Parts: sequence; structure tokens; C-alpha cells
Amino acid sequence: MMNKLLVFQSDFGLVDGAVAAMYGVAFEVDENLRAYNLTHDIPPYNIWEASYRLFQAMEYWPEDTVFVSVVDPGVGSVRKSVVVKTVNNQYVVTPDNGTLTHLKKYVGISEIREIEETRHRRKDTEHSYTFHGRDVYAFTGAKLASGIIGFEDVGNKFSVNSIVELEMGDVEVTNNSIKGTIDILDVRFGSLWTNISREDFTKLGFQFGEKVEVIIRNGARTIYNNRITYGKSFADVYISEQIIYVNSLYRMAIAINQGNFAKAYNISTDPSWTVEFKRLNNNI
Amino acid sequence: MMNKLLVFQSDFGLVDGAVAAMYGVAFEVDENLRAYNLTHDIPPYNIWEASYRLFQAMEYWPEDTVFVSVVDPGVGSVRKSVVVKTVNNQYVVTPDNGTLTHLKKYVGISEIREIEETRHRRKDTEHSYTFHGRDVYAFTGAKLASGIIGFEDVGNKFSVNSIVELEMGDVEVTNNSIKGTIDILDVRFGSLWTNISREDFTKLGFQFGEKVEVIIRNGARTIYNNRITYGKSFADVYISEQIIYVNSLYRMAIAINQGNFAKAYNISTDPSWTVEFKRLNNNI
Amino acid sequence: MMNKLLVFQSDFGLVDGAVAAMYGVAFEVDENLRAYNLTHDIPPYNIWEASYRLFQAMEYWPEDTVFVSVVDPGVGSVRKSVVVKTVNNQYVVTPDNGTLTHLKKYVGISEIREIEETRHRRKDTEHSYTFHGRDVYAFTGAKLASGIIGFEDVGNKFSVNSIVELEMGDVEVTNNSIKGTIDILDVRFGSLWTNISREDFTKLGFQFGEKVEVIIRNGARTIYNNRITYGKSFADVYISEQIIYVNSLYRMAIAINQGNFAKAYNISTDPSWTVEFKRLNNNI
Repeated sequence: MMNKLLVFQSDFGLVDGAVAAMYGVAFEVDENLRAYNLTHDIPPYNIWEASYRLFQAMEYWPEDTVFVSVVDPGVGSVRKSVVVKTVNNQYVVTPDNGTLTHLKKYVGISEIREIEETRHRRKDTEHSYTFHGRDVYAFTGAKLASGIIGFEDVGNKFSVNSIVELEMGDVEVTNNSIKGTIDILDVRFGSLWTNISREDFTKLGFQFGEKVEVIIRNGARTIYNNRITYGKSFADVYISEQIIYVNSLYRMAIAINQGNFAKAYNISTDPSWTVEFKRLNNNI
Repeated sequence: MMNKLLVFQSDFGLVDGAVAAMYGVAFEVDENLRAYNLTHDIPPYNIWEASYRLFQAMEYWPEDTVFVSVVDPGVGSVRKSVVVKTVNNQYVVTPDNGTLTHLKKYVGISEIREIEETRHRRKDTEHSYTFHGRDVYAFTGAKLASGIIGFEDVGNKFSVNSIVELEMGDVEVTNNSIKGTIDILDVRFGSLWTNISREDFTKLGFQFGEKVEVIIRNGARTIYNNRITYGKSFADVYISEQIIYVNSLYRMAIAINQGNFAKAYNISTDPSWTVEFKRLNNNI
Repeated sequence: MMNKLLVFQSDFGLVDGAVAAMYGVAFEVDENLRAYNLTHDIPPYNIWEASYRLFQAMEYWPEDTVFVSVVDPGVGSVRKSVVVKTVNNQYVVTPDNGTLTHLKKYVGISEIREIEETRHRRKDTEHSYTFHGRDVYAFTGAKLASGIIGFEDVGNKFSVNSIVELEMGDVEVTNNSIKGTIDILDVRFGSLWTNISREDFTKLGFQFGEKVEVIIRNGARTIYNNRITYGKSFADVYISEQIIYVNSLYRMAIAINQGNFAKAYNISTDPSWTVEFKRLNNNI
């Protein structure tokens, strides 16, 4: 018995009627659905962020919740429209264009099915090719969340291995350092979130209060090289001082306490940016 | 029996407590109302966009849904506060200031009533003249959506013909061209949405894959003149190539695939802007 | 019996998954909660605005509604995490860092309790120190709103007098003038909202239609000195003319009808800005 929770994310923004149209379609399917937003401010066409945002938020929602993600620059091309079931028994309705990258790698997908559009497309919408968000994804997600269809009714299943994945950064560990990539910016506060897990970081023996050498590179170019305190929380450093901390995804992040690190150092989140944490050389 | 769905739009933005105050008032009327946003990012005072957004979103919602629209630069002046019932049995609570322009022209309004404010204004709010959104519109919309009052209780009806309309662009058709206006920008993606319907456009015989001459003028001045492919979806053109396509309102639109047409060519949406699609001259 | 209404505000913005994570946690506690946003666009770290927004919106919501406010620059430091009950029988879950300033002064707080985090923190989150919004505040607010815990179960109570307060501006009255501070900007429309109540203003005898001398100072420096009409609503002045009016909080405000006063005169909202309304000297 589904819990009727339906959560939307997209790159549509909230400035026009596009998101409201998806909500309306959901309520036309079942007025008792309970619909919420993850975010609609994913930058246009940014599939990587769509993938990351699902990863950031889904685990906090109940089992059976259905998520609809519409970041779809390839609409009308050969990408599949799919529904997945994760190992946590949650569902995601999305184009299979890399949006499932983080869920596949860090959470686990048990099953994936391709949406049979002839059956799961709102009637009379065959001539609108550019708004699958409303006519296919919201519609199918709503039917699933309401219990009108079961996951097996969505369409044929295919191999989880063939799910489209975007390239992810690696994590390289040495005796005294660990290097990873900048996964995303905590946009509002200008913090850098890396792909380095707390476990891997602490295996190097770093302690709270310890200064760590931090090197940020863009490709081969060094952009930043300094020593930053590893703190439990922002309260451990002075206002405007920098800090390495564990973020809400249990990965390492860097911020300026009540400042904006990304703007201060003109950082971006391109796969060519790397962050390295090194144990301070005791001779220095 | 009303479905208790209540949908708000305004030019308030979501940055302060104004929208939340309207929601609160709705729940004070009936805690079981189900309230959602259309958008609150209509540019300040932009009645034309308020009208367009209702048109863009309402048809996807169930019958009986009540919409409250508050874009009200004339608050305190002689404009009426009204509730309309559309031919689709949906309701809109709004100032009668042109917000009903597109609904009147493209959807159809069956009946309009002026809100009897002495009866439908939150008590003790007689001294606040600038926040009708909360004290009259949200309050009346909530009472209607909950079933506490019926549409006939709102106030006296008057002639649908006298509903205030903003000036709309015309569509001019010749043997080999069709000219209309730029209704709105798909803000996020920089696409131009015209008032030219898919039917009128295709009557000229344009086929998918065909190049069409496009002339955009601001008044008499030509801003843009080029040939653009008419495609089924963005996938039919290369990334960064331009495309004419059918948008989610079944009207013709122009975009750059994964670019931003409006910014690239510095286009705006003023009634003096026109878009003309012409059959290519075979001699050229 | 709680009404299950849970309202969130924060400085997180809506651009990522942070707010959605708080919603998810709430629904994990009780799927039947009804969750809404006050605003998440409080400028980062701006406790004063967090306080003001609660004040702006809470009174319009039903009794028993639980509000969760997360503007927490001091996360991890010695500030308390608390739940208050107001004289209107509403609840606020927040850091005790000044967020309760306006509620304490203008509404009234009957009781305050410190959250016993060992009991009211989501399990297995002991290592995330930076996301109390999700792991303590949303979680505790949800348990309270659902009725799973009562207010007395939150933790020990302490004296309302010791609630942290930010410095507020005073209002100074003379025979022919009243001077106060700029509490906040109505961001969207560029209006200035002062801390001067309608009662205090009208005691000076100002009438609708009367011109009032207005002096805006930043510290000792005069920024603006002109005569503005006191109007009932924007309709009482010409478009682009200035107006003094009573805002939705029954306090005096200044705007340009369909313009943006704050931008026009480069005003800000720092405690050093003052606004003085003076009776026009009849000799001038």
C-alpha cells in the first residue's frame, strides 16, 4: 500500500506554471496524493546536480515514496524514460541520462523498468514532444504513488548494469594524503563538498583541532594551498576563519565560517577540479 | 462537494512571510484544505504574466480547484475583487484588472461575481488596505474551496463581457507567412513563446525538418532575420542550434537547443515585438 | 490534539536538497503531517530577519501549529536548541540565538524548554554536527506536531526572561514628530517597513491625504528629506509617486507606487538607519 508521497525535482525553476502543471496532472490522477518539492532550481541541463540532489535528499524520506526527476536536455532523443526501485524500496521516475549515477553507485538500484509510453502517457498529448515532465513523468509517477499501477505495470525491465552513468571523480589515497573531487557547492553558503568520505579521511588519523594542508587544483594549476583546521562544527573556528568539516552526507567539506569559500577563491565544480588533504609535514 | 484544492499565485516572491500569511489564513478557515503554489515569481505588477500563468497551468488541475491570483498594483482603487467560474468548473479569485484576459479569450468564463467585501473580509482587518491578498482573496478562496460558502454566496454577478481585458497581440496570416506576438519568455531556458497556435502554423504546410524564415521585429525595427529548422523536439537539432517547436501550450516557440535565445538576441516581451514565420522563397 | 501543521523557515534557500531532507525526516516521523514553508530565503546568517518573518506570518496560522526555524550560524557552539509555546498556543522550534526577539517583545512567550538532544535527535546522527536543521529541529518539530511527544516531553523549562534578544530600535515621539528604525525591506517591492505602529503615528494627528515630512538618516547623515503623502493605499497617489501607508503588520511604511523606494534611494536596513515623520511646518 503506497504512502501517496510524491516528490518532484527539475531544472524548471519556480518562476512559471511548469511545475504547477505537473502537480495538477498528479492531482487529476489522485486528489489524495501528497506532493512536495525536492528542488526545481537545478541549473538548466545539469544532470550531474540532478543526480546529486536525489542522493542528498532521498534517504530521509519514508519507504515507498515516489520521486519524479525531470532534467531532460535530451528530450525527444533516444534516451529511455524509466522508473527504478532502489534497495530502500523507493522509486524514481526519470530520463535514463545519468540522473541515476549517484543512486546507482552509492545507494543501490534493485530493478529498472522502461516506461511503456503508449500506456502511460496522458491522453491527447501525442503532439507535445517537449513536455514529458508533465505528460509522461508526472503522470506515471502519480499513478505509481497512488497505487493505480504497480511497479511491474510500468513496462519491461532491463539490466541495472546498463543504467547510464556520468563520469565520477576518483578518490586517491596515499600514506599521508587523500585526494578527491569537488562534488558540488553548498550554493547558499559557498562551501565545497568533496567526494571524500569521513571514513576515508579519518583513516589518515586526522583529529579535531588539527591543521591540515589543503591543495585545490584546477587540472594541473594550483588554485589554493593553505592550512585549514579540521573542526567538529563552525563554532570551532573564529568567524571568517576556514574550516574542514563533515557535511550532512558524511563527506568532507570546506567552508569559511559565515563567509563564502567558493566566491572568495573563485572555485567551480568541473570534473577537472581536485581537493587534496595532506598531513602537515612536521618539519615545516 | 469541493475537492479542497487551493492554488495560489502572486507577485510577492517567496522571500518573506507574505505567502505564508495567505496559507495560514486558508488553514484558519479549514485545516483540511490542500494548498499549493502556482508561482509567486510573477514580476512585480505584471498583470499580463499573471493572466498567462493561469492559462498555462489551470487546465491540468481537477475540476472544482480554486485558484487565488494576487497581482494587484491597483489595490485600493476602483478595480473590483471578483470570483469567476470557468467553463471547466474551476474558480479564480482575483482583482478584475486584466488577470482574466487569457482565460476569457482562450478558455471561457461562464460566470463572474463581485466579492461582497463586507461579508468576505477577515474580521478586524478594515484598517489594512494594502494586503487584500491575505484579508480578502485568500480568505474568500479558502471559504469557497472548503465548501463553507458556495459560489452564489460570493456576491452579485455581473456580465462576463465587462471583464477587464489587456490588449492582446493579433495573428496575421498570408499565403506564405504568419505573424504574431511574443506572449512570454520561458524564462529559465530563454525560449520565446508566441501566440501563434500549432494549427494556424501547420495550415501553411510547414513540415518537420523544414527550414523556416523567421523575422523578429520590435515595432518597425528588424532585430532578427534568419532561417530556423522546425523540429519535433530539441533532439532534432544540434546542441546550440536554433529550433522552432511546439510548446506545452500547443503554440509555436523558438529556442536554442541548450542555449538561451532571448539573451543571445536581447529580446523582450513588450506588445511591440512581433515574430513572423515565412515560407522560404525557393529562388533564394 | 495537534492539528499536524508543521511550517519550516530557514536560510537554506530552495536550490538544493537541504529543505527536502527536513521534510523527509518529518514524514518519516508521521506521514500524515502537513508540512509547508514560511520562507527559506532568509539571507544567510540573518537572525534578525528570521525573527521578523516569524512575527510577520505566525499570527495568521491556527492554534497548535508548530514552526521550525533554522537560521543557525552558531551551530555547534553553546547556544541552546529550544521549543517555545507562545501566548497564542503556537510552538516554535529554533536555536535560542535571537530568533525569538520579535515574538518575545510583540506577541508573548508563555513557556520555553530546552530540547534534550540525547532523546530528540535522529538515531545514528551523532557524527553530523552541522545539520541540526534536519537531525534535531525538524525531527523534534515533527514529533511535537504529530502528537508523539507533548511539549512537556521536550526537555527542561527555563526562564522566559533569559531568552536571547537582538537589539531593537526604539521609537521616539515628540509633539510634532515620531522617529523609528527601518525594520525590514519588503524586498520584492522595495518598500521600507518601519517599527512605528499605526497607533503611535496617528496619535500625532496625521490624516489621509496629508503631506508629511520624511527624513531618513544613516547614523548622523541625512540620506533623504522630502514630503510624502500619507495615503490609504497605493491608489491614492499617482504611479511613480511616493506614499506613506500602513502595512500588513499595522506599521508605517514608505513606497513608490509601482516603483522601488529602497533602490531609488539606496537604502539599507542596518540598525543605524532611522526614519522620522514630522508634521509639516506651516510656515514653509
